[in-house]
Parts: sequence; C-alpha cells; structure tokens
Amino acid sequence: MGVVTVSKIPVIEMFGPTIQGEGAVIGVKTMFVRTYGCDYRCSWCDSAFTWDGSAKDKVRMLTPEEIMAELLSLAGNNFDCVTISGGNPALIGEAMGTFIMGLHERGIQAAIETQGSRWQEWFNDVDVLTISPKPPSSGMKTDWEILDGIMGKLHDKGKAAHSLKVVVFNEGDYEYAKAVHKRYPEVPLFLQPGNEDVTEEGDISVRLLGRLEWLFNQVIVDPEMNRARVLPQLHALIWHNKRGK
Amino acid sequence: MGVVTVSKIPVIEMFGPTIQGEGAVIGVKTMFVRTYGCDYRCSWCDSAFTWDGSAKDKVRMLTPEEIMAELLSLAGNNFDCVTISGGNPALIGEAMGTFIMGLHERGIQAAIETQGSRWQEWFNDVDVLTISPKPPSSGMKTDWEILDGIMGKLHDKGKAAHSLKVVVFNEGDYEYAKAVHKRYPEVPLFLQPGNEDVTEEGDISVRLLGRLEWLFNQVIVDPEMNRARVLPQLHALIWHNKRGK
Repeated sequence: MGVVTVSKIPVIEMFGPTIQGEGAVIGVKTMFVRTYGCDYRCSWCDSAFTWDGSAKDKVRMLTPEEIMAELLSLAGNNFDCVTISGGNPALIGEAMGTFIMGLHERGIQAAIETQGSRWQEWFNDVDVLTISPKPPSSGMKTDWEILDGIMGKLHDKGKAAHSLKVVVFNEGDYEYAKAVHKRYPEVPLFLQPGNEDVTEEGDISVRLLGRLEWLFNQVIVDPEMNRARVLPQLHALIWHNKRGK
Repeated sequence: MGVVTVSKIPVIEMFGPTIQGEGAVIGVKTMFVRTYGCDYRCSWCDSAFTWDGSAKDKVRMLTPEEIMAELLSLAGNNFDCVTISGGNPALIGEAMGTFIMGLHERGIQAAIETQGSRWQEWFNDVDVLTISPKPPSSGMKTDWEILDGIMGKLHDKGKAAHSLKVVVFNEGDYEYAKAVHKRYPEVPLFLQPGNEDVTEEGDISVRLLGRLEWLFNQVIVDPEMNRARVLPQLHALIWHNKRGK
C-alpha cells in the first residue's frame, strides 16, 4: 500500500457514472469511490474485498486532487454526485474533508455511507450522510455509546440530510431496526432486505424481490414502523452480483 | 353516482396499508384513496376504471369524515400517510381541503399525485405533492400555460415538498421529460419507466426491470439529466398488475 500519509486516501475502486441503487438518494446518477479498510467484518459483506486482503494489491494511495482528476477523466461533466463507500470511509481523516471541499467547489454533491462506529469532523460537510448500523446477522456488535455520540452531533448541527439505514436479513435484524428507530425517532430510517448470497451468478432478481415482499409485509402490519421506508437495492435487481455497477 | 355536492368526494376505492411503490416517497407505508373522474384519457392508464365507466357502479359519494372513518376502520393506527390518487384528484374542490385538514389533525401526512392540468388552493396544504405531466405516448397534450401557472404558484409558496414525475415509455417521452426538466430546473424530477401492458397476468418483473435498465442507461450517458432520479414502481415489481395493492 505504500506510505500512508494524512493527505492520501486508500482507494480500491472508482467507477461510474451509474445509478445509486439504495437509501436516501436512490435513483440518482452518481460516481462511486470505494475506500479500502474496515473496522468491521460483517458476515454477509458484499464488498469484503475492501478488507479481507484478497484485493490488497489493487489499493492505491491517492490525493484528493488525484481522485478528482480520475473521476473527471472517467465521466467528464456527466455527474453531479459522488458516493463514497467502503470499507468504512469514516476511517479516513482530513484528506476526506479536503476531497469533499473539492467536490463542492465544482457543484458536486457528496454522499457517504458509514456504519456509525467512528466520527469525523467532515461528516458536517457531507450532503447525504447515511449511518448504517449493522444488525445481529452481521456478527458485529453495535457500540451504542459511540452511535449515540454521532447521532447527537448530527442532531445538534441541525443537519437535515442524514438518515439511518438498516439491512434486514431476518426477524432478529428487524427487531434491531425497530430498536434503532425507537432510539432515534426523528431521523429518517430506511430498511433494506439483505442479499443472502453475494456470489450467486446470473439473475437473482426473483430471490431479491421475494425478500423485499417479506420486508414490506413486516412493516405493513407494524404500527411502530409507520414512518420507516422500505427500499430494495436497484442495482442488484438489474445488474445482480456484478461488481463495478 | 347520486347527487354531487361540494362537500362530498367521489371515491372508487380505498385500500391499505401498503407500501408506496413510486415517486418522492417511495417505500413509505400508506393508505390509498382513489377518486373517480379524470380530465385525461391516457392510452396506457393503469387505472382506466376511474374514468372509462367500467366501474361506475362502484363509485361512492363520501364526506371527508366518512372517508376518514373508513380508513381508520381498515387500518386502525397502522398508518401515518394517506395517498390520494385518481383519476385526477385535482378535479375535487374544497371537500379535499377539508379532508387534508382532517388528516393533519391526526398527524397523518397527505400525498397526492395529479397531472398538473388544474390548480386547487388545497395544493398548498399537501405534504407530498407530485405533479406528473403526461408525455406524448399518452396521447394527451400538455397545456404548458396551465402547468407554468401551477409550478409558479408552488414555487412562490416556497413549498419544498413538491416534485415532478414523468413516466417514460420511449425516446419521445424521454425528450419530453428533458423539456420538463429544462423548464423547471429547480424542481426535483423523477423518471419512471412505463408499464407497457397493465393487463398481463403473472410475474411481469423481468419485463419491468428490463425497462428500468433501459431508462437507467438513457440517464447515465446524458449530462443534462445529472439531477433527475430514476425509480421503478416497486408495487408492480412485487405484486405485478394486481389491483388494490
């Protein structure tokens, strides 16, 4: 990985333009920048190559300016949004803040997803911030004290554009999502059915739609979830388990 | 249909709770109230029974209080949102305003979709207002002067929660959607692939996802559509052409 300095970001892939398939800005055209490294090891992670070492030789340490140049060379003026995903992009410090400022100078939105295990000051500058705590099926344990701290800081800033997202594989996960909703009732909550096999080849849309219907039906009969929003992963419905889409 | 008075609303169906499948509040749990009557005759209308006379005997003239009572008896406290669709609900006058006030008194949101052929004062009270002008494939002709008037009034009120939605069946419709986006660049625009056969039985999800991919690909290569959002009809992906879902 070369020498890590504070001014560089470990990038494992960049692609796009494509359509954001999930969460608060579902349906928006976006570029993707995926950072390397994660403090979690979710059992069903669909991007395990960002932390399991299998693609370590693909990681490049890039400055914010280099990332911007590469996005522009990939897509020209054909995007107004960049989604930064991981891995956990919240492991990156001030270099990410510099990158986000660079996006804003060009009138480009920054959307970021992170699990809420770590705060960064640049969260305040993100246009669309998704906090996605991981349910029991992931095998991870939520540190509620840290999550409370992050949600509290976002609330104090009066930031309208942050939301929560919980991936739901089973009833235990659904109960976890309800606990999240009760804990932060004013924050928009998105529920997303999990993809139970991220390596299956071919068209997986029928399986995924079956899980979406299951999750719809959980919420439909549950008066405590009247304000939650249930959304699929559109990219997985259309492009299945292919990477770089 | 009995005697039509200003204080009653012609209702053809009520159902729910279900999940809103499209547009600005995609994924939200909602009840549906469908009003009878339309000033349009779209060739591909998926609710032609609201205007073609085939279900005229199902229409009931109901007061706002009667509609509210029926929603509560259908769903109890198991909803926070009511979607009013048609037909064209903008044909209804002050009775609709009364109904919306009744929703708000109970902390319930009102979401409405209309084609933008007619203004009503109660538009100002709608929480989620979707203006959905119809593209050429519908066979209808947009009256731009009227649409400009409606969009201007919504803009003047500084209402954040209104958006535009255009259903797209083909390239001509896509060009129409671009014209709408250029005309009202500050209003969020949702694009939705059309359902080319609203009577086909069985699982139509593969066909619909194919059209979603086509529309994704139009937008992905088009720098003039960087801010448009492309969304499917989730209910049609899951429940296909069944009514009352």
